[in-house]
Amino acid sequence: MTAIRHALSITRDADFAQWYQEVIASADMAEESGVRGCMVIKPWGWGIWERMQALLDRRIKAAGVQNAYFPLFIPLGNFVREAEHVEGFAKEMAVVTHHRLIADGKGGLVPDPEAKLEEPLIVRPTSETIIGDAMSRWTQSWRDLPLMLNQWANVVRWEMRTRMFLRTSEFLWQEGHTAHESRDDAMAETLRALEMYQAFAEEDVALPVIVGEKPANERFPGAVGTWSIEAMMQDGKALQAGTSHYLGTSFADAANIRFQDREGSQQLCHTTSWGVSTRMVGAMIMAHGDDDGLRVPPALAPFQVVIVPMLREDDGDAAILEYCAGLRAALLQQSAFGEPLRVLLDAKPGKAAAKRWDWVRKGAPLIVEVGPRDMENGKVAVLRRDALWNLDNGKPAFDFAAKDEFVTNAAAVLQQIQQFLFDEAHARREANIVRDIDTIEALDAFFAADKRYPGWAEVQWSRPEGGALDKVVEQLKARKLTFRNVPLDAEPANGACLFTGEPAVERIYVARAY
Amino acid sequence: MTAIRHALSITRDADFAQWYQEVIASADMAEESGVRGCMVIKPWGWGIWERMQALLDRRIKAAGVQNAYFPLFIPLGNFVREAEHVEGFAKEMAVVTHHRLIADGKGGLVPDPEAKLEEPLIVRPTSETIIGDAMSRWTQSWRDLPLMLNQWANVVRWEMRTRMFLRTSEFLWQEGHTAHESRDDAMAETLRALEMYQAFAEEDVALPVIVGEKPANERFPGAVGTWSIEAMMQDGKALQAGTSHYLGTSFADAANIRFQDREGSQQLCHTTSWGVSTRMVGAMIMAHGDDDGLRVPPALAPFQVVIVPMLREDDGDAAILEYCAGLRAALLQQSAFGEPLRVLLDAKPGKAAAKRWDWVRKGAPLIVEVGPRDMENGKVAVLRRDALWNLDNGKPAFDFAAKDEFVTNAAAVLQQIQQFLFDEAHARREANIVRDIDTIEALDAFFAADKRYPGWAEVQWSRPEGGALDKVVEQLKARKLTFRNVPLDAEPANGACLFTGEPAVERIYVARAY
Ligand SMILES: [Zn+2]
Ligand SMILES: [Zn+2]
Repeated sequence: MTAIRHALSITRDADFAQWYQEVIASADMAEESGVRGCMVIKPWGWGIWERMQALLDRRIKAAGVQNAYFPLFIPLGNFVREAEHVEGFAKEMAVVTHHRLIADGKGGLVPDPEAKLEEPLIVRPTSETIIGDAMSRWTQSWRDLPLMLNQWANVVRWEMRTRMFLRTSEFLWQEGHTAHESRDDAMAETLRALEMYQAFAEEDVALPVIVGEKPANERFPGAVGTWSIEAMMQDGKALQAGTSHYLGTSFADAANIRFQDREGSQQLCHTTSWGVSTRMVGAMIMAHGDDDGLRVPPALAPFQVVIVPMLREDDGDAAILEYCAGLRAALLQQSAFGEPLRVLLDAKPGKAAAKRWDWVRKGAPLIVEVGPRDMENGKVAVLRRDALWNLDNGKPAFDFAAKDEFVTNAAAVLQQIQQFLFDEAHARREANIVRDIDTIEALDAFFAADKRYPGWAEVQWSRPEGGALDKVVEQLKARKLTFRNVPLDAEPANGACLFTGEPAVERIYVARAY
Repeated sequence: MTAIRHALSITRDADFAQWYQEVIASADMAEESGVRGCMVIKPWGWGIWERMQALLDRRIKAAGVQNAYFPLFIPLGNFVREAEHVEGFAKEMAVVTHHRLIADGKGGLVPDPEAKLEEPLIVRPTSETIIGDAMSRWTQSWRDLPLMLNQWANVVRWEMRTRMFLRTSEFLWQEGHTAHESRDDAMAETLRALEMYQAFAEEDVALPVIVGEKPANERFPGAVGTWSIEAMMQDGKALQAGTSHYLGTSFADAANIRFQDREGSQQLCHTTSWGVSTRMVGAMIMAHGDDDGLRVPPALAPFQVVIVPMLREDDGDAAILEYCAGLRAALLQQSAFGEPLRVLLDAKPGKAAAKRWDWVRKGAPLIVEVGPRDMENGKVAVLRRDALWNLDNGKPAFDFAAKDEFVTNAAAVLQQIQQFLFDEAHARREANIVRDIDTIEALDAFFAADKRYPGWAEVQWSRPEGGALDKVVEQLKARKLTFRNVPLDAEPANGACLFTGEPAVERIYVARAY
């Protein structure tokens, strides 16, 4: 085995946080905007988010949920109402107080004191209250239910410490909001959305997730129950990649969402909400990236195949470009994941080798190089991003294939890459979960400070409530640990609670987290 | 000819503005949100905008433009810089001054004085300056050019008097921003975007447009030239449905967008910008709607065919639903406009006749009713939204077709409807344009106060500049008239300027406008 010269300057092992920044920069995904807490999402990063949107939107619509759009601004009064109902009301929000700028007479501009709003407007941190207002207008009778709405939108929560894709003041998401006749209907929808998120994460993002209920201390403020999908990053930390909330009738009560039931009496709706955000892009990076940069699952890749012609800036270039254009046209006739292949012919000025490494860092699933000799022999040189190196000689593992054969097989290879990324992440996660910890000492040993990327512990607990739960959460907090969720498909409990010593009632994941 | 009982309570002829509001309300497209100047876009209205986005986005990408995303907030300082360069700087903007709310001790919430921003942030009214900042980082060499970016985003311009889809404080749009090596390249892109808008309007929205250059007084502030597509509404007013600007090098100068040219020296980029917004939805309503509500061009319809089963809440319903589901499945195998048909089986509770009129008001292109007898005979009852009435008896003009035949023909019929809407709007526009006005008196007569919906006048003019142009614009303003554009494909001028009496150099449209 020869030493490999990786495409990044820093490895995951050396410094995971630094590595993450380098992947984003070198894959040209995003950058700081100069506006506090806001990032610019560059075309490659945006293209991946667009693909996520398209695939998740299809799943949302298939369930009969309808997209709509609600105002960016929410009157301050809505939050007063909300604050009355919700203990843990978050107050870090962007507040609009004026609607005009005027010259300050010194060459600058200032908010016009004459244009001060009577009631400040808040840039939406979530649209619960304003969608609740609409629902109260739209639900008259049980015939209007279920009312299932979704919005793709930007939201703002003021953040002091930001990290691209993971925590930014402005971020993008979809928020589903539904209203139902009964608790059962609303619970079914809460779990449907959760399963939809699991399918999206696992099938589209190639990201294995643990599906379960959050403990009471991690519930959305005011919710009756919160469920999540949790993914393991390559540093062993957990990332909550989507949540689904059953809100009971308290949000309906606050927003007056009522309906006439089948017997003619007025009832409060049972509501749900569920969301997935641009955080998912961060999860994809930290689950699939390697020491050569990003690896985009083919289902999400804006371009699944990138063709790099080896141009010499001479008369031969036209023939190579024509050969490559023919290759692209043939690939476009093929389908993977139920859609035509997405293929780029990268004919920009520049050296082929430099382009190759750009596309490696960007994580294009298949990179195809074509030089004069390949063309003469009817061949192409193929790099699979998930099997980049020849471990024997430390060189890129080009496969020299007949052009037609490559075209015929391309879709199948893309599906293999998708599966490989999932399997690899799944195996890594399972290898980094312990399930036999039954003392706090064993927990401390597993999460010992000198263990670089410890992973997760699935432990048994008695599901304490109120003050007893607070005490357990404090114990974890002192260890920089958090509860993730109570997996839906766990083995039944059969021992004692790790924290209280009482008989355990279920299993729950403990981990460091983003 | 029997009197028709139209589905709306008000006709276009009686009160166009009221009619517009009723179409939007009765088609369930949008409603007031309770937040000043902002509307809620309901699922049917949103679905139409989503279709517009999909079709225009395809055209944008086909031209090699890349989507990206830039921050919602723009620092105040960017506008100071902008204000220095731009005379007509618009100042009605939403100003964020605080990033936290706190309790006021009286049960309310107020902006936290401790959380006042050092520099206010502006909610983007357009992203020229922040995208300019990014371009200045991203263009180093001529090899980086052209840099062609597009963003789909919400923007805010504070409006005192609002009108749904036409003028709202928050609206949605795409903004293209491109940077080029030379004036020629930038001009070519400006005109490419303009042609793209024409194709989008005419082919997708079935909206005939006049393509031309705006006179100097209507230019985007700071632009060298502004071009537009202009559409005639059914009240004869003009609506500017898209603009494309050649910005010269002044925006590049302000944002420092430079590149090293092929000879190695530093140059300013030539930039362009171009945009289409949710106004286009308003244009579609006012161009195609009729006294029965909206008519959605099939290329834009979220559902092109709506199947309404005639249910009796008895044992026979299951068979009808099955028949309708089979019909839907067969239609989904058909394609129109290069995509599979979009078909809804409306199985919600409710009477078939009520649903029929709902879908008429919403403007679904084809409404198909299926009752027990239709089913027995293997038939369907089809309503074409563009030919709704039997003028002989004043009743809905149902066509009773064999089911299989309907399925086979559906795509062709949808394409006919699309063409019919275009042709009708085109004929109406041409019938309402006069081209022979050569005195102010004739202009006054054409736009006389007692003429309800006069249309447009194409007149000859000498293209005055500066103060001379201002005087002409004042003359028009006194008549509540505006210049629209100088059509690219007009006949050459051959007479005297209507306003100055000097020899005319070109033709320009004069109209009332939205
Ligand atoms: Zn209450
Ligand atoms: Zn300057």
